[in-house]
Amino acid sequence: MTTKRDDAGRPPAPRRGSRPTIRDVAALAGVSKSAVSRVFNGQGGISEPTRERIQEAARKLGWSPSASASALRGERTRTIGLVIVQDPDALAADQFFAETVVGLEHELGPREYGLRLHVIGPDPEQETALYERLARERRVDAFILTDSRVGDARPDLLRRLGIPGLLIGRPWREGAVECVHSTGLEQAMAAAADHLVELGHRDIAYLAGPADRVHIGLRRHRLERSLASHGLTLRALVDTELTNEATAEATRRLLDDPSDRPTAIIYANDTMALTGIATAQRMGLRVPEDLSVIGHDDLPLGRWFHPRLTTISQDARAISRTAARRLLTLLGEPVEPLPDPPPAELTIRESTAPAPQQRGPAPHDTAHRTAP
Amino acid sequence: MTTKRDDAGRPPAPRRGSRPTIRDVAALAGVSKSAVSRVFNGQGGISEPTRERIQEAARKLGWSPSASASALRGERTRTIGLVIVQDPDALAADQFFAETVVGLEHELGPREYGLRLHVIGPDPEQETALYERLARERRVDAFILTDSRVGDARPDLLRRLGIPGLLIGRPWREGAVECVHSTGLEQAMAAAADHLVELGHRDIAYLAGPADRVHIGLRRHRLERSLASHGLTLRALVDTELTNEATAEATRRLLDDPSDRPTAIIYANDTMALTGIATAQRMGLRVPEDLSVIGHDDLPLGRWFHPRLTTISQDARAISRTAARRLLTLLGEPVEPLPDPPPAELTIRESTAPAPQQRGPAPHDTAHRTAP
Repeated sequence: MTTKRDDAGRPPAPRRGSRPTIRDVAALAGVSKSAVSRVFNGQGGISEPTRERIQEAARKLGWSPSASASALRGERTRTIGLVIVQDPDALAADQFFAETVVGLEHELGPREYGLRLHVIGPDPEQETALYERLARERRVDAFILTDSRVGDARPDLLRRLGIPGLLIGRPWREGAVECVHSTGLEQAMAAAADHLVELGHRDIAYLAGPADRVHIGLRRHRLERSLASHGLTLRALVDTELTNEATAEATRRLLDDPSDRPTAIIYANDTMALTGIATAQRMGLRVPEDLSVIGHDDLPLGRWFHPRLTTISQDARAISRTAARRLLTLLGEPVEPLPDPPPAELTIRESTAPAPQQRGPAPHDTAHRTAP
Repeated sequence: MTTKRDDAGRPPAPRRGSRPTIRDVAALAGVSKSAVSRVFNGQGGISEPTRERIQEAARKLGWSPSASASALRGERTRTIGLVIVQDPDALAADQFFAETVVGLEHELGPREYGLRLHVIGPDPEQETALYERLARERRVDAFILTDSRVGDARPDLLRRLGIPGLLIGRPWREGAVECVHSTGLEQAMAAAADHLVELGHRDIAYLAGPADRVHIGLRRHRLERSLASHGLTLRALVDTELTNEATAEATRRLLDDPSDRPTAIIYANDTMALTGIATAQRMGLRVPEDLSVIGHDDLPLGRWFHPRLTTISQDARAISRTAARRLLTLLGEPVEPLPDPPPAELTIRESTAPAPQQRGPAPHDTAHRTAP
């Protein structure tokens, strides 16, 4: 990267004895002060060539708006807030968080927006107070919301605070808040059910995750409906924590009794699925020969695991990038929308196989597999 | 959580027709305006009972300093900057990032500080420009630095910008910047070497990670020295990427030739170690029977993996919490320092075992293990 310089090889000097001002930038770019202001506050209405000329002038002069002065004038802070409500252990365990942050930064960073992150525990009063404080102190221009919840109060809260928000996920009430989420979930859950049924599985369990998340209920409902069309009932654990520890414990309980053991388990996310596979292996079961496993999200480690994880893919990073651009557009930034993220779909790899009883003359009693 | 109210059951009303001001807070608390200001700008010098009385008064009145007005007066933004320079795939793959963020938030959040996060690619000019812009626009009070680098220019940059910084890790030049890092690395690397040598390993490989990171060089140096004391040479891959893909490829190359194959591999982090185990399993090798594996960091998934990962533990979350408190202290916040994080140490689990040739009459040619 090189810095453009004028013919004399030096950047043009600002007025002697003072720091450059918005007036200097306007003069150099041949525009009004308000045009400079519009460009730096993301208000739009400036043609692309003019915008570039103004930005180039500001760069040459080493000028940028003071964040504090801009905010006092009611202008932009160029900061997006992200308040994550999750148990720290679950957050650290789930690669989805890192994928989301990386996707948001991919779009925000080059446009000189920052992401202001808060991680708090599940205390509704504390959460409301935090949003209120960030609004009152004018810390952010807008919020990204994640982990859509049953009975979610955040859309109303943001409306009351007069701050735009965008949800990554499906809203609790349709239309309550702008949102970006993957499509095709219905078809992907049906494909997962069909895939397992075709492999001969009849006893299928589902570790659904926390019951207060909107997507958890949607996924389970759709999986149940798909299995019902095959005349099967889902063995759903409907309210499980997302930590490795809770997942291992729930998996052990599911697999503990060889005479009443599912032949396939679907997990709410890939990290849980990998923990589930390890737990089954530790009980002496082989995956996929004795137990088929399907994850959700298609996060990186699942692709490198042995066996490679069959999963319901959604491109978390693409969804976050789309969400960031949509939010920037809401803020008046002149960004091109990204195409919709690819639909969710079943990605079949190595962790699913024919159900044990379908694979030739195996004994019906599988107790010997629980050793050592 | 409940809000304290006065005897009439209502919070005291601010002056009619206007929002509460710092004057109202000072009056209610019976202190000067400057005392209120000191408390809300983290300048210290106020006794704990007085601080509590002032904060209680502000809460009752629903007053808080405008971030923008405070920043204009040269006061605090209550924001800590964290600029991560890493390939997005490597960042998403590494749980260390999430652990660090969770640890920082644990301390910053309750003190109403926010973390401003930027993820950028490895472009030194872009990085410098970002720090300069965040300083110029007064976006942050201080920076947390991670991933200490060989020839790190950031300490000098921050000094030039007049913004405090604190490094999580070991600085390139001793004393160049405040830092928090785990102790005991020397002993832990020696313990890892001793552990493998005692198990009969003589051909030990090390996937070190990127050569421009300070800790990578330190770890390798110490491992080499420890092995040398046993008369052994480390087979070090000294400059490897941190992505799953690069790790799998490097592991395949190491294990490809059965006649010249290490019996143990140490990886620069746990995510790499898990990818390495899966890669070895995919080549038909058993871990730990055919190959011993040691990771680094003791991140959650390794504890649940099968086999459970032997690793050089460092408590990333504790280190980040200590770092956050140290930085808050540098900023004049009245926080108690945390005790030093626990020293790094070797945690022996299931992924290390006697070297193959030590386990009875096994054939010297191990080619049969590379199937299927």
